[in-house]
Amino acid sequence: MAVVVDFEGSRREGAKPALDQINALVADDLVKVNQVIVDKMDSPVALIPQLAGHIIAAGGKRLRPMLTLASSALCGYQGERHVSLAACVEFIHTATLLHDDVVDDSDLRRGQDSAKAVWGNQASVLVGDFLFSRAFQLMVGDGSLRVLKILSDASATIAEGEVMQLMTTNDTETSEAAYMDVIRAKTAKLFAAATEIGAVVSERPAAEAEALESYGMNFGIAFQLVDDVLDYSAEQTKLGKTIGDDFREGKITLPVVLAWRRGSEAERAFWRRTLEEMDQREGDLEHAIALMNQHDALSDTIERARHYGSIARDALGLFPDSEIKGALTGLIDFCIERAY
Amino acid sequence: MAVVVDFEGSRREGAKPALDQINALVADDLVKVNQVIVDKMDSPVALIPQLAGHIIAAGGKRLRPMLTLASSALCGYQGERHVSLAACVEFIHTATLLHDDVVDDSDLRRGQDSAKAVWGNQASVLVGDFLFSRAFQLMVGDGSLRVLKILSDASATIAEGEVMQLMTTNDTETSEAAYMDVIRAKTAKLFAAATEIGAVVSERPAAEAEALESYGMNFGIAFQLVDDVLDYSAEQTKLGKTIGDDFREGKITLPVVLAWRRGSEAERAFWRRTLEEMDQREGDLEHAIALMNQHDALSDTIERARHYGSIARDALGLFPDSEIKGALTGLIDFCIERAY
Repeated sequence: MAVVVDFEGSRREGAKPALDQINALVADDLVKVNQVIVDKMDSPVALIPQLAGHIIAAGGKRLRPMLTLASSALCGYQGERHVSLAACVEFIHTATLLHDDVVDDSDLRRGQDSAKAVWGNQASVLVGDFLFSRAFQLMVGDGSLRVLKILSDASATIAEGEVMQLMTTNDTETSEAAYMDVIRAKTAKLFAAATEIGAVVSERPAAEAEALESYGMNFGIAFQLVDDVLDYSAEQTKLGKTIGDDFREGKITLPVVLAWRRGSEAERAFWRRTLEEMDQREGDLEHAIALMNQHDALSDTIERARHYGSIARDALGLFPDSEIKGALTGLIDFCIERAY
Repeated sequence: MAVVVDFEGSRREGAKPALDQINALVADDLVKVNQVIVDKMDSPVALIPQLAGHIIAAGGKRLRPMLTLASSALCGYQGERHVSLAACVEFIHTATLLHDDVVDDSDLRRGQDSAKAVWGNQASVLVGDFLFSRAFQLMVGDGSLRVLKILSDASATIAEGEVMQLMTTNDTETSEAAYMDVIRAKTAKLFAAATEIGAVVSERPAAEAEALESYGMNFGIAFQLVDDVLDYSAEQTKLGKTIGDDFREGKITLPVVLAWRRGSEAERAFWRRTLEEMDQREGDLEHAIALMNQHDALSDTIERARHYGSIARDALGLFPDSEIKGALTGLIDFCIERAY
């Protein structure tokens, strides 16, 4: 599952000021979050910091913790609780990545060897469990039952979403509604929790917590939709990343759902052979992309992403204009522009 | 990892009144715990209750939740919180079993097909994650930060213990101290948390919480030591269970540690071939058992278990005599007598 984008790579393209902007605004806090992450992934059991360090240090731009920091800033938060809670969000995310690599049997993660490729399935499962437990220890240390509820609910929903995804894998008849349920649960719910926490630590009114939760949820959906497009997109290869991971794993994402629904019976036979029977031959990925383009499946998936991005933008309407609000809306544009 | 004994099987032997006694004392509460378990393992994602039901319904006698219920009774607790917390303990245990089966690549669990044999590694990892999250949701529902701390600390320690066990697997030079660290973390810590919770919900003084925590920890160590003996014991086969699982998986348990330390260089070569190089041939298990008997490795492991059992018994000295106290000490005897 390729939910994390190498923003460094994107930034080298020189066209992503939105990300630079939000990065700059939360940079000091992000340094503190990284310190908490390094401190808390430690254990006398040496393999744990080794393996956790591999995945945590190697990748991503801490998008989810950045959302917690930015949401807190949007709410005018002045304390320090958001730092450990942002680390906690990243731990939950990292635990799911470690388990995803086992579930997907992926040897690559963010262009590098995955933890499971280096240390095996066993260690990846167990260190994932450790990071997940650490996340709860961090929350308990924070001491807010409301935050604990938000994040334990999110964790259960993520697990449900991952199981749903497992059940739709290889099922070419998966509906758009079922696909949306999967990505809301497995991806967007943690984005929503990450942003809602910003309002909660700031003790803002329920309407603002709800607005930030809606921003996170809808931004998360848009993010995953674009990610699913990128897995079939030449843009991805420009960033030095491989394409076709979802195809090779038989995952049913929205581009497939749309191409299948809009396709002829002969085309459906192709999708069944490649994604249900997993009988994939040379040229099949290229043919899949051609079919998607023929049916506007990729561009319409981006249109769907725009729709959720608009909802996310409007959710922030409640907050007065500010630099941080501009950065949060800019993040939506950045996310969608990745697809081009 | 064979930490769960089929008490039903044992009871059919007709020689285990201690277990019947404790069972009878907490029977009403245990019915409620089972109801919470059934209710809370439910999910709109059908595979989750299917898989969770398979492992939860199939096995064990709810030893850990029974410890929470009995400890609460020992403290004179009158409320209902112990019911959902006992269910929570069982969920954490079940989540670790599901992940253990993936880590150990076990196709059998309690004499039946393991979940991973039926549904595969992927679903077992993810449903384990779900049950683990559910446990935290239950704790959050209970609302005690102290209980949340006890169980989140236990969860992190269990994961550390499992990773430690992974690192000692195939390492015949594992010391007794390292082995003890593994079983304290992977097994005994959850027993200790289960019993400590009884005092915490009852709002008993710190000394009683500490006494119950010590009972659970030392009983848990004794339990695991006997379990490790049973894996090489003919007694086990009388219960219709296989022996030699640990041997086949290259796990280093105390009987191996003792036999290796007491053995000749030629014997150590045998252990290295079978457990490090994993070159196992017909008759090797029988030869391993013969070496263990020759060096009193099995009987002395039971002696070690007796030692921890005595500490557990004395920890309860703080509490006045009662039927439930008799049942808790009887449980120690039952645990050790399993070995004969």
